[in-house]
Amino acid sequence: MSADRLDAQLAFLHEADKLKSILRHSRVTFADRRENDAEHSWHLALAVMILVEHAEPGLDVLRTMQMVLIHDLVEIDAGDTIAYADSAAKAAQAERERAAADRLFGMLPPEQARALRELFDEFEARQTREARFARALDRVQPILQNVHSGGATWRENGITPERVREVNRAVIHGASPALWDRMEAVIADAEARGCFG
Amino acid sequence: MSADRLDAQLAFLHEADKLKSILRHSRVTFADRRENDAEHSWHLALAVMILVEHAEPGLDVLRTMQMVLIHDLVEIDAGDTIAYADSAAKAAQAERERAAADRLFGMLPPEQARALRELFDEFEARQTREARFARALDRVQPILQNVHSGGATWRENGITPERVREVNRAVIHGASPALWDRMEAVIADAEARGCFG
Repeated sequence: MSADRLDAQLAFLHEADKLKSILRHSRVTFADRRENDAEHSWHLALAVMILVEHAEPGLDVLRTMQMVLIHDLVEIDAGDTIAYADSAAKAAQAERERAAADRLFGMLPPEQARALRELFDEFEARQTREARFARALDRVQPILQNVHSGGATWRENGITPERVREVNRAVIHGASPALWDRMEAVIADAEARGCFG
Repeated sequence: MSADRLDAQLAFLHEADKLKSILRHSRVTFADRRENDAEHSWHLALAVMILVEHAEPGLDVLRTMQMVLIHDLVEIDAGDTIAYADSAAKAAQAERERAAADRLFGMLPPEQARALRELFDEFEARQTREARFARALDRVQPILQNVHSGGATWRENGITPERVREVNRAVIHGASPALWDRMEAVIADAEARGCFG
């Protein structure tokens, strides 16, 4: 290995520290503040580890974990967009994220840059079982945290229970019917407890 | 799978959210605040992914990643202890962490509880190449973040460059001579720039 490779890798890891300052719309459960992308990514990777038995059989756990660890890095440049945004806002976000992927992953040695870009593109395309499960967990976690926080993000953004089901059903059910069944129950319970206002 | 298993797993992931509120002695690089254990664990897992070529050959990347993702969960009950603490403080911390591991991992279905406890014990014992690399990165990251933050944690705690070398050399060099060489240069540069006061 060359000193140049290590230099590039450490510069990338330093730049990645910025993810700790990118705030999401969701809130942490045990403190009165918004969650940042770095702690969210950790929680997702832990969820991959703990919930993998509910995924499609034959899933590559390491690849899924790598995908969730890097999936939000592009938000260092592109910022966070709520899952309930309209399609124009989502298209603009996707364009910003592609430019961000070029810049950020481009800091790494070429073959690592390619590998991370492939992971990111795979996550976005949701065509493999790894990407489907990663994307499903990326929807499950905010629903659970929102319920535990009394529904604050939903009320702030005027999100109805119907909209939560509509936006999340295919993404979660397509990766794990068991997880979607549980989310249905969680959403119904949140509705009964007045989380949607 | 039973509903009970999923219940237990989701309860564990909910409890794990508390890691986002456990503050470390180190600081994040791009904001004026202390780092929490969840974002630190994410950064470590990313470092495993990016720096693995500098580890001992044949390392199991997935196992190393799982180890860093769960290694600090015990601090939900036991709190953070700085790497430069004395041996009595470290022994007391180790005892609190064993009790925390019993409680936290015990929330999971039995075979998952055992698997996480094994990962945690392996990390602590530092006898496998996976544990050695995980522990080394757990030392490398705070050194780098401290340098990028102008040495604030070192000055606050009266840590000398000699003490940084003494405490970290064996842990980092034993897992990766290349990473230790780089840390030697980083510490010398920090010393020259007045990071130690």
